[in-house]
Amino acid sequence: MPIEFSRIKLREIGIIHTKFKGDVRAPIQPYFNKDDRATVEIFSEFADGLADLEGFSHIYLIYYLDRAKEPKMKVVPYLDSEKHGVFATRSPNRPNPIGMSIVRLIAIDDNILTISGVDILDDTPLLDIKPYVDKFDNPVFRDEKISIGWLEGRIQHPN
Amino acid sequence: MPIEFSRIKLREIGIIHTKFKGDVRAPIQPYFNKDDRATVEIFSEFADGLADLEGFSHIYLIYYLDRAKEPKMKVVPYLDSEKHGVFATRSPNRPNPIGMSIVRLIAIDDNILTISGVDILDDTPLLDIKPYVDKFDNPVFRDEKISIGWLEGRIQHPN
Repeated sequence: MPIEFSRIKLREIGIIHTKFKGDVRAPIQPYFNKDDRATVEIFSEFADGLADLEGFSHIYLIYYLDRAKEPKMKVVPYLDSEKHGVFATRSPNRPNPIGMSIVRLIAIDDNILTISGVDILDDTPLLDIKPYVDKFDNPVFRDEKISIGWLEGRIQHPN
Repeated sequence: MPIEFSRIKLREIGIIHTKFKGDVRAPIQPYFNKDDRATVEIFSEFADGLADLEGFSHIYLIYYLDRAKEPKMKVVPYLDSEKHGVFATRSPNRPNPIGMSIVRLIAIDDNILTISGVDILDDTPLLDIKPYVDKFDNPVFRDEKISIGWLEGRIQHPN
């Protein structure tokens, strides 16, 4: 095992259950299927960590893209026909296959979360949950202008 | 090694250099020190993956909290005096010590990124970089109301 693996020790803390079966990635971002519901099963040993999460409308899911292919440094993403550096895309075929989505939290029943707005494959291993806090996480609150590189003009505003 | 470790294989892809030395976590969120500059060194084998990232004003850094303590399911976070479930907080002492920050991207020179808005300890191992895309990542664009649970009323708007 290469040296760089040695410090990183992570484990599955649960499983994400969705309607997206198989190995092909679902529609690329939550935005495109915002009403689909899904569930997140937290393993019982971690369920106490969910206390007070229900007050948050949105959460980050951080998960392991277990069906990602070999990483590529240049990829052709869904929304373009040209290659871009993998770190400038959300391609799953990255050096570390970590996925991250902001989803809407609908309900928590014991160790089961009901969510909506996912683009995640069924049976994906969960690594972490964090609360979404707009005043921390939205650069607009820091008076910062946002630009989105090659994606500019390629995303339709939903309204 | 427990079974649940077996599927998760991740590696350091770089190092985050900041002015926050030592073992004590810096101010809890980027918001509190938005003008501090820092650098991210990407190991050379991954530098080609940075192509086209410079067009993005903001990026996610996903990193390994290598100085986190043993995980606790209930923690007293910085902004409160009461315990909350760890997943309802940004405490580093979580089952998987994964940190995530949205930072401003100032410049890229070869394999070195200059950024601002960090609350990350010096010499933190980097796991992933993703572009911040407001129309994907800001629930307001999905017409969704945001609530922030126990943090409501505890964060001052910067203006």
